[in-house]
Amino acid sequence: MDKLHVVKIGGNVIENQETFLDFLKDYAGLKGRKILVHGGGKEASKIAKKLGVSVKIIGGRRVTDTNNLDIITMLYGGKLNKNIVAQLQALGCNSLGLSGADGNSILAEKRPIKSIDFGFVGDLKEVNHSLFNLLLKEEISPVCCALSHDGNGQLLNTNADTIAASLASAMTPYYEVHLNYCFEKDGVLKDIDDDKSVLSSMNKMQYNLLKSKGILHTGMLPKLHNCFKALKEGVRFVKIGNPKMITENGSYTLITN
Amino acid sequence: MDKLHVVKIGGNVIENQETFLDFLKDYAGLKGRKILVHGGGKEASKIAKKLGVSVKIIGGRRVTDTNNLDIITMLYGGKLNKNIVAQLQALGCNSLGLSGADGNSILAEKRPIKSIDFGFVGDLKEVNHSLFNLLLKEEISPVCCALSHDGNGQLLNTNADTIAASLASAMTPYYEVHLNYCFEKDGVLKDIDDDKSVLSSMNKMQYNLLKSKGILHTGMLPKLHNCFKALKEGVRFVKIGNPKMITENGSYTLITN
Repeated sequence: MDKLHVVKIGGNVIENQETFLDFLKDYAGLKGRKILVHGGGKEASKIAKKLGVSVKIIGGRRVTDTNNLDIITMLYGGKLNKNIVAQLQALGCNSLGLSGADGNSILAEKRPIKSIDFGFVGDLKEVNHSLFNLLLKEEISPVCCALSHDGNGQLLNTNADTIAASLASAMTPYYEVHLNYCFEKDGVLKDIDDDKSVLSSMNKMQYNLLKSKGILHTGMLPKLHNCFKALKEGVRFVKIGNPKMITENGSYTLITN
Repeated sequence: MDKLHVVKIGGNVIENQETFLDFLKDYAGLKGRKILVHGGGKEASKIAKKLGVSVKIIGGRRVTDTNNLDIITMLYGGKLNKNIVAQLQALGCNSLGLSGADGNSILAEKRPIKSIDFGFVGDLKEVNHSLFNLLLKEEISPVCCALSHDGNGQLLNTNADTIAASLASAMTPYYEVHLNYCFEKDGVLKDIDDDKSVLSSMNKMQYNLLKSKGILHTGMLPKLHNCFKALKEGVRFVKIGNPKMITENGSYTLITN
């Protein structure tokens, strides 16, 4: 089976232009089939402020009303996605940007309203593996932004970590899939106050133990949840680390069952 | 040879949400292979104003500095393109949005600076027919926005009429191509003050005659230039008219050699 790298790059990395260009060079140099999933970063809030659109964050999550969705669509689907693709083309990597609506690549449903209405936020339903297979066979690397659609004309703001994990899982019948979560740290930290306390690996038992002790950064919990889910669904390797980890020189935590 | 419809839809039509949704319904219902090319409309200037970005128009053309290019990329490549695709998916038309960087679909070069520096504006160099063929064979309809790239990482603001004509020409070896320019009028007018003076057809000789008399609207001249070029390059039918012309009920001017 051929290898497929699914690489998620976080907003914090995207914001530092130098680090990000460096990452894109490494990514373009990564051999074989690959898919890039990118987050957004803080520019959405900056643009919202300039446009006079109010931003509401509840429990660390953005409430996505129509105006905020427009901003996200402009920024993630437009400016970020198109510039990433243009840079990758310049680096010799034939890539193609996708929102979930494009080629019906990622279908979701609007999150049901419980205690809080998060607005136009999508819970993932289905990845269109045929489209990804079509592009990958032609050596075209998809670049996915954090937008899905509901099939009824509505775009939905969708967690990029979850998109990466679901994409990775969906491609396991066709490829040996490697899922890489790149962010601003060197991996999962044993001590959140010590950036050097990187775990070289972590299994489900250790995860449960650290979680019960309240030692893990709360932001890591959904990411790790996605990792274990992906492993369970047949993804071969899952790593969390700094952007350099897609080369031989990076630091990361290997997540295992 | 199978038919291929290349449909260009202008900014004025896009701005009227009702007319535009109506057009998308007609487009989704259009049988066979098809490509949609869309312009931008006046929202770019509105957003520029809100963001405090100055807009400079010289001779009816927008000067595209970095800030204006960002706005165009956000709006045309993001908000407009992704919402069009999401609407078409809802209407049962599997479509996929493209800037020129995506899949290296449309390569251009930055317009050389002569008396005026128009900034990041692209003159078209090459259409990647392989990518369009790949998608069309899978019954995926490309939706192109007015952005190309230079292959060196730079996105370029590019005239949507020219993109439509070049795309149509590039596909003539593979399809019987029909090029449709949809705009807010019923066709080419003999009398610019009389919306009912639509020419049912127009050939090159009539064009030159009307042009020399100064009768044609100046905005029509580059559009018609593109039409005759496309015909010369093997496009089978070229029409200019209202959005309804892609059904049986629309009004249009048939452009002939």
